Amino acid sequence: MNIGILGTGTVGRTIATRLVELGHTVVLGTRDSTATLAKSESDRMGNPPFSIWLKQNSSIRLGAFAESAAYGEMVINATNGSGTLAALEAAGEANLSEKILIDISNPLDGSKGMPPSLFVCNTDSLAEQIQCAFPSTKVVKTLNTMNVRVMVYPRQLMDGNHSVFVSGNDPDAKVKVSQLLRSFGWEDIIDLGDITTARGVEMYLPLWLRLWGALGTGVLNIQVVR
Amino acid sequence: MNIGILGTGTVGRTIATRLVELGHTVVLGTRDSTATLAKSESDRMGNPPFSIWLKQNSSIRLGAFAESAAYGEMVINATNGSGTLAALEAAGEANLSEKILIDISNPLDGSKGMPPSLFVCNTDSLAEQIQCAFPSTKVVKTLNTMNVRVMVYPRQLMDGNHSVFVSGNDPDAKVKVSQLLRSFGWEDIIDLGDITTARGVEMYLPLWLRLWGALGTGVLNIQVVR
Repeated sequence: MNIGILGTGTVGRTIATRLVELGHTVVLGTRDSTATLAKSESDRMGNPPFSIWLKQNSSIRLGAFAESAAYGEMVINATNGSGTLAALEAAGEANLSEKILIDISNPLDGSKGMPPSLFVCNTDSLAEQIQCAFPSTKVVKTLNTMNVRVMVYPRQLMDGNHSVFVSGNDPDAKVKVSQLLRSFGWEDIIDLGDITTARGVEMYLPLWLRLWGALGTGVLNIQVVR
Repeated sequence: MNIGILGTGTVGRTIATRLVELGHTVVLGTRDSTATLAKSESDRMGNPPFSIWLKQNSSIRLGAFAESAAYGEMVINATNGSGTLAALEAAGEANLSEKILIDISNPLDGSKGMPPSLFVCNTDSLAEQIQCAFPSTKVVKTLNTMNVRVMVYPRQLMDGNHSVFVSGNDPDAKVKVSQLLRSFGWEDIIDLGDITTARGVEMYLPLWLRLWGALGTGVLNIQVVR
């Protein structure tokens, strides 16, 4: 499948390489391709500059947010939560219309101390804000509850005996996203309901952040035992 | 141990009988003992009126919040989140001073539709509000992330292979609470850190509520896989 991924950070890159490994083709979207390619320093986590990474992953193309969204039969939002709505605006409503948008972002707000709080929660969620701004797009919230390595290689952790959630208003879109999740290795995929249930998974992040702190590793997830 | 439990609903009652089963003695605390004993109807979940339950559990005593708190070497807050601060105020600072207060409440707010939202979250938590109002009390947040049957009989679910969290400022208090949790059957007890980490476990509730809805059972929990 042709897939557009918005965001060129670790999350976007890791999902892109995994999708290519699974036989898909990817255009990564960014705000300003020239600026993204011009960066010459590693990021805080020691990841190489984008241009070097791109040379190592030559089947992946870089484009503006709009090119990436236009290319994708399915689009994945892997931007920072704080930049998500602007990125989607730049991607363009027409390029997202009637498509499945997999939203894996989190509304993290580092401005009030660490660990981050959320800039939207409780009676609203970032996924709902996206769905509201792009009513003809089929937004499916998923994968935001874990580290990106766990997202795309779930079986590296306890043989995959842990859970992932999907939230969205379109049942068929959730079925298609679940197929993609299964191709990553996911087995326990829990359909929480409509897009308002994204409040639940976004509000789980504060616990996840504290588990990361307490356990000293971000390679963790939860299994829903029932 | 002599334990005071604030709250006479299903949660308080279930913990009380479990503690008696484990050899402890309990005084259940309520706002108005006469009113609590006068209730003659079953609650929404079909539980019998308190007076009938009390006859069936004759070793348990009922008292005012202050009597219950004064009695307990350790006190458990099993009141509704919305009534918690008022209940603790009635219990009295002197009766709670230097004691461990196990806070299992959740700041649920049903006024903005169902499932409930939280009346405090994100940059504060109910547990922190309690700790702030009662600075000489050793508040330990725990057990708020599950149904009461799972709280006190964790092994009924997947042989107990799931997790419980403790948050609090006093390390020794967390050790003592963890001993009590182990006596219930808990094995995977994760110390998240100081009382601010209660934000994480309280903000998990919106996910828990949606899991309950999606799975059709409240007898569920999460196992932290790492």
